[in-house]
Amino acid sequence: MTQFNKETVYQNARKWVEEAGEIIRTEIDQPRKIDTKMNPNDLVTEMDRKIEEFFADKIRQTYPSDLILSEEGFGDQVNELKGTVWIIDPIDGTMNFVHQKRTFAISLAVFHEGVGEIGFVYDVMADILYHAKRGEGTYKNEQKLVPIAKEKNLSEAILLLNPLWCAPNDRADHEKVAELVKTVRGARSYGSAALEFAYLAEGITDVYVSFHLQPWDYAAGVILYHEVGGQTVKATGEDLTFLKQEPTVAGHPDLIAEVIQNYISLK
Amino acid sequence: MTQFNKETVYQNARKWVEEAGEIIRTEIDQPRKIDTKMNPNDLVTEMDRKIEEFFADKIRQTYPSDLILSEEGFGDQVNELKGTVWIIDPIDGTMNFVHQKRTFAISLAVFHEGVGEIGFVYDVMADILYHAKRGEGTYKNEQKLVPIAKEKNLSEAILLLNPLWCAPNDRADHEKVAELVKTVRGARSYGSAALEFAYLAEGITDVYVSFHLQPWDYAAGVILYHEVGGQTVKATGEDLTFLKQEPTVAGHPDLIAEVIQNYISLK
Repeated sequence: MTQFNKETVYQNARKWVEEAGEIIRTEIDQPRKIDTKMNPNDLVTEMDRKIEEFFADKIRQTYPSDLILSEEGFGDQVNELKGTVWIIDPIDGTMNFVHQKRTFAISLAVFHEGVGEIGFVYDVMADILYHAKRGEGTYKNEQKLVPIAKEKNLSEAILLLNPLWCAPNDRADHEKVAELVKTVRGARSYGSAALEFAYLAEGITDVYVSFHLQPWDYAAGVILYHEVGGQTVKATGEDLTFLKQEPTVAGHPDLIAEVIQNYISLK
Repeated sequence: MTQFNKETVYQNARKWVEEAGEIIRTEIDQPRKIDTKMNPNDLVTEMDRKIEEFFADKIRQTYPSDLILSEEGFGDQVNELKGTVWIIDPIDGTMNFVHQKRTFAISLAVFHEGVGEIGFVYDVMADILYHAKRGEGTYKNEQKLVPIAKEKNLSEAILLLNPLWCAPNDRADHEKVAELVKTVRGARSYGSAALEFAYLAEGITDVYVSFHLQPWDYAAGVILYHEVGGQTVKATGEDLTFLKQEPTVAGHPDLIAEVIQNYISLK
């Protein structure tokens, strides 16, 4: 078992997340130079890679035996959550980054021996850092978030859902998902899974369904949400592995079973 | 024809919008006293009414011959846009107000002789005021918004859509709407039509479809959007009347006809 000093790792990770945010804010304000050479998708790939490389360099210098699970190629081949594994999305909400220049996030989670210990979701442009250490609660900047409501009915819930899942698709029965949309009080879609998990943790949304998330999209968010009483599972009801793409349901514990049983039929 | 001094009306309306926002921010910070007596829906009705009455009192004192078109009962019976008509939604995004305590807006439009002259959409909690006078551009606080992109393809567009319209409903063919969702680059849903029109005006979203909007939901937003080159019409392609509920499409002028023709089949 590798050594793991949670507080030190938290402090280092937090510093790196804030530094990465500063890099993004600086570069996003001078886009013309880059825009003229590349199309928007190249631009974001470039920024994604730059930030991921920034994290990979910091982690490898400081924690050479840790592993990195990430999107852009600077990570490791991770087949199990042994030792300390950093799960990173340098820019979650790529389309918002390109098209809106806001409402995207850095998502960084630290797992140790299979357990999610530390999570950060950083709304870069709003400068709002959601952060959690296991067992110590979730914070929005310096404000501790309160546990989610004791009880929740689906008819009073706000659902997070990409409208795509109400259209015919190869993952799940879209008509059942449409039934879910008609059952809940309202549906929202913000375009960043990491931020949407932060909004779950804040208690301003109550249930989340997606069929194509990668571990780096939600690993940090799951930790934030767990600390305030929320639950995240595979859409089969099993535990997430955090190792590969999995259909995902997150929500108030009162709602998870009902959503899976009545509204999700995987293909 | 009644007298209409656009600049004076703008200055008064702006002052009232800002004062109303301050009332809401003060009351939303002391919700416990009210929560214990009422359920959340009563709370919002109370606040909606209070703010609408605030506007109605100000307008009637200052402009006694003007008419008011609004939701909560303090307005007039308005059958045509003659003279000066104030179209007001005191809290657009009621569910967000109750459930999120943010991402709702005051929407206020002033029409004179049938023409939208002044529009305000005020994101109360973020303290961001979108405002426009016809012919003078749209502002986000003190920043003038740039005209929307010269060209836009549907495949590169961000669509604003309540996922409800992808579920079977009595207004429009949901399967065609689902096709639209699959055609665009991405879909978003924020829960406030007024703010969604402001986001169109900002150019961070590109097309909007809804089948149950009331004039007070979008009257101000249409003015904001028009000033930067956006277009808003009935989902039949005809002009909006601003007098009753109408199915609505807003977007880049390049996209409107294509959306109506290929993706909207009203029932």
